[in-house]
Amino acid sequence: MTPDFQALPAAKRAEQLSLIPPEWRITYIPSVESAPNVLQYIRASNLLTPEELAITEAKDINETLQRISRGEISSLETTKAFAKRAALAQQLTNCCTEIIFDEAFASARKLDQYFALHGTTVGPLHGLPISVKDCIDVKGYDTTVGWIGLANKPAAEDSTTVKMLRELGAVVYVKTNVPQSLMMSDSNNHLFGQCVNSLDRALISGGSSGGESSLIAAGGSSLGIGTDIGGSIRIPAALCGLYGLSPTFSRHPYDRKGPRQNIVIATAGPIASSIATIETYMQALSTTETWKVDPRAGPVLWNSAKCSFAAGRKLRIGFITDDGVVRPQPPIIRAVKEVVTALRAAGHKVLEWDATCHARGFELFEKAVLSDGGAAAKRMTDLSGEPLIEGMYIGTAANLLSTPQLHELTSSRYLRWKEAGLDALIMPVTPWVGYKPWTWVKSHQYVGYTSIWNLLDWAAFTLPVTTVSRQKDEPLDETWVSYQPRNPSDEFNKKQYDVNLVDAMPVGVQIVCGKYEDEKCIAVAKLVESLLKRDC
Amino acid sequence: MTPDFQALPAAKRAEQLSLIPPEWRITYIPSVESAPNVLQYIRASNLLTPEELAITEAKDINETLQRISRGEISSLETTKAFAKRAALAQQLTNCCTEIIFDEAFASARKLDQYFALHGTTVGPLHGLPISVKDCIDVKGYDTTVGWIGLANKPAAEDSTTVKMLRELGAVVYVKTNVPQSLMMSDSNNHLFGQCVNSLDRALISGGSSGGESSLIAAGGSSLGIGTDIGGSIRIPAALCGLYGLSPTFSRHPYDRKGPRQNIVIATAGPIASSIATIETYMQALSTTETWKVDPRAGPVLWNSAKCSFAAGRKLRIGFITDDGVVRPQPPIIRAVKEVVTALRAAGHKVLEWDATCHARGFELFEKAVLSDGGAAAKRMTDLSGEPLIEGMYIGTAANLLSTPQLHELTSSRYLRWKEAGLDALIMPVTPWVGYKPWTWVKSHQYVGYTSIWNLLDWAAFTLPVTTVSRQKDEPLDETWVSYQPRNPSDEFNKKQYDVNLVDAMPVGVQIVCGKYEDEKCIAVAKLVESLLKRDC
Repeated sequence: MTPDFQALPAAKRAEQLSLIPPEWRITYIPSVESAPNVLQYIRASNLLTPEELAITEAKDINETLQRISRGEISSLETTKAFAKRAALAQQLTNCCTEIIFDEAFASARKLDQYFALHGTTVGPLHGLPISVKDCIDVKGYDTTVGWIGLANKPAAEDSTTVKMLRELGAVVYVKTNVPQSLMMSDSNNHLFGQCVNSLDRALISGGSSGGESSLIAAGGSSLGIGTDIGGSIRIPAALCGLYGLSPTFSRHPYDRKGPRQNIVIATAGPIASSIATIETYMQALSTTETWKVDPRAGPVLWNSAKCSFAAGRKLRIGFITDDGVVRPQPPIIRAVKEVVTALRAAGHKVLEWDATCHARGFELFEKAVLSDGGAAAKRMTDLSGEPLIEGMYIGTAANLLSTPQLHELTSSRYLRWKEAGLDALIMPVTPWVGYKPWTWVKSHQYVGYTSIWNLLDWAAFTLPVTTVSRQKDEPLDETWVSYQPRNPSDEFNKKQYDVNLVDAMPVGVQIVCGKYEDEKCIAVAKLVESLLKRDC
Repeated sequence: MTPDFQALPAAKRAEQLSLIPPEWRITYIPSVESAPNVLQYIRASNLLTPEELAITEAKDINETLQRISRGEISSLETTKAFAKRAALAQQLTNCCTEIIFDEAFASARKLDQYFALHGTTVGPLHGLPISVKDCIDVKGYDTTVGWIGLANKPAAEDSTTVKMLRELGAVVYVKTNVPQSLMMSDSNNHLFGQCVNSLDRALISGGSSGGESSLIAAGGSSLGIGTDIGGSIRIPAALCGLYGLSPTFSRHPYDRKGPRQNIVIATAGPIASSIATIETYMQALSTTETWKVDPRAGPVLWNSAKCSFAAGRKLRIGFITDDGVVRPQPPIIRAVKEVVTALRAAGHKVLEWDATCHARGFELFEKAVLSDGGAAAKRMTDLSGEPLIEGMYIGTAANLLSTPQLHELTSSRYLRWKEAGLDALIMPVTPWVGYKPWTWVKSHQYVGYTSIWNLLDWAAFTLPVTTVSRQKDEPLDETWVSYQPRNPSDEFNKKQYDVNLVDAMPVGVQIVCGKYEDEKCIAVAKLVESLLKRDC
């Protein structure tokens, strides 16, 4: 190990803390046991003013945007409120990487001056602070992807995503934590350390956009930009009771540099506390004409008219409670069933979907993402001497494909998938409800519920629909107790279920629509949410 | 070699001839010297009736479609006229592979019956016979890709392209010749033999859609569907004085089965005798909603309004006469310059484009298409024992990339390309005007003028603008005579130029627009054609 590996993380974390104003520092960080829930801790404390609480707890960015565009609050005030709350969340959960407060305040001031001078906003997201995942380049700040070897190498320019955010009037004020390499559902790395869940600090917030989900769940951001290649937006959003869209690739530019496989392409996308926020954001982003900044994107404008169904329209929806590979834990099966019941009660046609081909889809996904045999990860560890986190989702020599094999894989991607005339699929996001840190890496890494949609480049959305309940999810029914696990992932997942570990934690479901059907995901999510609210 | 390699081609060609009605067979095939030009030979002969001549010489499919939709001619009459002329062209140039006449006549009869019964057409291409390249699956007929080992293995179903053609009302009546493996600009293979150019049977018609271009140039088809991964539509179209569009991939589904690299993707596209035909076809195809049948396509409708410029609009156009790798032969440089002069005279801004990055683009293209080290071709030769045609554009062990190298290649594709605020580029299609058979494979295979646009998935169009002229292209100017070739391809290309070989042959130029700017290619082509006509 080089000295970098020992000295760099400590220096980086010290620098990170130094960028948090002293008055925002928590003198005594409470123990996990004494303050498991960051949201409750912040609300119960006097750390935020009532106005700061009000600003940061608005679930829908439209409310904030309207207040700014009417001159009721300034961008600076808004940005400071979110920065302060993000600073608190960071100290309690380790959800942040780069602290960009000073630059953000300067940007917010400029936007306020523009508004004062012209009486108009610069764009549809004028003045809104937005957090971005570590892997999205912000000029002058590190993009580490959780590797020590990439620390202290600030990006030379903004990524296309950040350029577009700025064009829309947004303020970038913080970057958020990720797993080493991004290839885990647990946001842990040697540089910034372990990120935990703001709803229960004993549990993880997922990954790879786990810093985002924990930050947003704590109220430290109202809109965060994550990325998703196999579930990296949807899994952390679901674990933190949030909404997340993994869009059709063309819909959201993401130009992470460097060599990688391109059979399954990572897309960027939003995580937020409401469907309305995601809809507003995607609509705004589309106005920048994403296809003009990303050569891989197609010129397909966001169509707001498709974000709601006409009154009385009856849908045809498929559902899955078990994909035949890893059986979801009881609260997840219940969550899907509750949505199915609500949809049926409202007169929609809901059919069980034959998931037989999903195992094959996951196999193809896995082959693609591991196809370099770990070469890219090795380049990263060689930079600093840091070890790979064991159990991470990185190829080894055994996974290395030859180029002819890779060509074969590419060509077989779509052959087995047929349309079934469905409007959407309702299904689990993960087969597990919550894990403690260091559990996921022992879990045989099953991300088949989310990753097959990346393989196909279909739009997929997650929304929270229920919470774990001792009453509803205990005692365990016979089918769960008696079934024989089908493989090591399934066995591990079954063993891990413990209602005491995850009681009261949110459970989300996934809504999957076709390629370029991102708007339909929104429409189905709105429908499901309205039906469930009516049922309450 | 297995018996297949010896017996199969003879049997296949005998079967092919047997499917041509005896009354359409030419008793004595004239020598190349006595009848170099098929078009002149057919026109001067009494082989076609005046009505058959009129039907097959309509340059614009709109004329034929209107006559059919007004009931002036039947689809059967039209299909028979084209089939007969295709049969003649086949005997003189070897441009066809599968003869689908009987099935086509049955389809045409059905369409005529539908029209008689309902008084309306089934779709915008009602009754129009369309030829398709060998590599496009037609149910019940071979897709050989020029390999003996794929003969007598009829396709189990129509390709998406053919399904869409039928949905639009078109009649598929013939498939057309290609090079072994498609990876040559000379349509020659051991199964069907050498295809030659209908404008001069001593010369090749290019490739890989060389059967299409020769058939259309002979008047044996008014619209053919080719495919293009590096110039395979544009090169044969240019060599035969035709129009060809290599569309943005999403615009034209092409679902050729089997494993292959997907960094540069082959697209299907039209070849025809007029711009209007190509515009009408692309507009019609779009109505079938290509993205619903091809999972890789984006939902981008054809926009007819973008196929013409508003009166008085001044364009900003770049041009290239030499890409710095292989210097085009004199008639080609003259062709580009004539277009530049015409555009400037009409008040458009025309600037020389810096082609410095083109060499790198071609290098990336070449690495990608050769990346399997010849594995796919080996599978094909193993089927029958036939040898590879030497000098063909197929990878060897030296070209095999490792999967990490392939990932790196993919990721570097777009980085060096920037937009320059241009409406279009005007440039050569190939650096050579015409070759005899077996020349291309000795030419070091330079397809850099066309293939870099496939790498970027940009729309590119070719149109004929002049013909070789002893007066204009001889004597050679000093810059051509004295320049020192830069590489073996350049040296070969310089040596090959002989005005006597190519006198009076057509010379095309290429119009390149951005991704999804297929309509703009049409608009620029219309403008260029109208300016050149005015200049005549």
